[in-house]
Amino acid sequence: MRVALGVEYDGSAFRGWQAQDGERTVQAELERALSVVADAPVRVVCAGRTDAGVHATAQVVHFDTEARRSPRSWVLGANVNLPPDVGVRWAREVPEAFHARFSATARRYRYVILNRMDRPALARGRVAWVHRPLDAARMAEAAAHLVGEHDFSAFRAVACQARHPVRELRELTVRRAGDLVILEAEANAFLHHMVRNIAGVLIDIGRGKRPPSWAREVLEGRDRTRGGFTAPPEGLYLVAVRYPAHFGIPEPDLGAGCTVC
Amino acid sequence: MRVALGVEYDGSAFRGWQAQDGERTVQAELERALSVVADAPVRVVCAGRTDAGVHATAQVVHFDTEARRSPRSWVLGANVNLPPDVGVRWAREVPEAFHARFSATARRYRYVILNRMDRPALARGRVAWVHRPLDAARMAEAAAHLVGEHDFSAFRAVACQARHPVRELRELTVRRAGDLVILEAEANAFLHHMVRNIAGVLIDIGRGKRPPSWAREVLEGRDRTRGGFTAPPEGLYLVAVRYPAHFGIPEPDLGAGCTVC
Repeated sequence: MRVALGVEYDGSAFRGWQAQDGERTVQAELERALSVVADAPVRVVCAGRTDAGVHATAQVVHFDTEARRSPRSWVLGANVNLPPDVGVRWAREVPEAFHARFSATARRYRYVILNRMDRPALARGRVAWVHRPLDAARMAEAAAHLVGEHDFSAFRAVACQARHPVRELRELTVRRAGDLVILEAEANAFLHHMVRNIAGVLIDIGRGKRPPSWAREVLEGRDRTRGGFTAPPEGLYLVAVRYPAHFGIPEPDLGAGCTVC
Repeated sequence: MRVALGVEYDGSAFRGWQAQDGERTVQAELERALSVVADAPVRVVCAGRTDAGVHATAQVVHFDTEARRSPRSWVLGANVNLPPDVGVRWAREVPEAFHARFSATARRYRYVILNRMDRPALARGRVAWVHRPLDAARMAEAAAHLVGEHDFSAFRAVACQARHPVRELRELTVRRAGDLVILEAEANAFLHHMVRNIAGVLIDIGRGKRPPSWAREVLEGRDRTRGGFTAPPEGLYLVAVRYPAHFGIPEPDLGAGCTVC
């Protein structure tokens, strides 16, 4: 039987998603907890492998098991066995054809910047902090240059293992909400560090260091060394993964409620 | 010279506001940091002494000092010397007539409930979690019974040291925002545990255990033992303290942005 799960985590105390010997990772914690529930070893596959410090409100994973448990039992059993900074939100039995990574048609990330003079105490670890004033309208103008299907080599980490650098960025918006500046990015898939590298370019533009047209220049240059800085991981949230409707994967609520929690 | 400060803190790892021998408290951390900046012992007085686990986005304090520092130097100096879970937002020189506690004309608290089946991973420690569905409209109807000047003995902790139990609750609203149910309460002052005890009654009403009119019954009974449970501290935020305008104390931004951060 194949089971899909929705997973939320606070990335602050994890060395990212992927299991690595001796490191505390979300994958390792989840596999440990699910193996207790299944009473047999469980290996999980995720939709988007997040880096150290990156959060998720709606990561999606799948695993195969011989164990027969109700969806509710997978959720409750996993949550009892997981540490407090990771939780399972839902479980669904899915057809064998479902694959958390390969069936996904889109990923959506949110990048949250706290833009005020003084450092965050309550939101520390959950936002990127930029103390110089950001002009969100300038950032939004710059963002529009990046939407579409492009070669995103200029926004790709050197270590990126993707086979090719073309991605379709379907949405990239910037809005201000009080002291927060919030980027929303949705694409068929993202290159390694792509959202954080886009955030780095938009922050430099928002601060007035560069004009909005610089985003297009960086994109067209296809040269990572001429791009912006890599914005820090703590502002980044995986907030949705899209699948064809017939798989019945729950749609996350992106609307009201708190972005940072 | 008298100086006022705006202070933000994550109450999770503090034994509340007030200095107690050997305990980690916000007051003790703040006094230690300010004493370094002043190069002399500093004692602070706050507007609202919050309990263990309770947060503040806009606590106000004052202190007297012989040290001559600019407002910016107090902020930067304090923040360099404070731990990451407490931060100073602003500093102002104020007249001797200003007193953080006695000059305050109102306090405003927010109580944030995460209302969903599964426990919070990202928002843990920053929200109260209620897994049974809450009807926010019922809670709002009940809340209206409590607004006004009343004897709030039924919502007062046994340990409360206030001289009398009459308070003017100027506003008490309940709204839903996605999975969050948010209470806003503003009064001239609050009794010990008053907001958490009000939240306890409203949660029981929201769950359907009691009718909205029960809020009035509890109030009129003036008997703590016949009230609701005391809702947990982690959902509670001190979000504003009001002063007469001539003191020039900054008004906190209560609008956009994230409630929980």
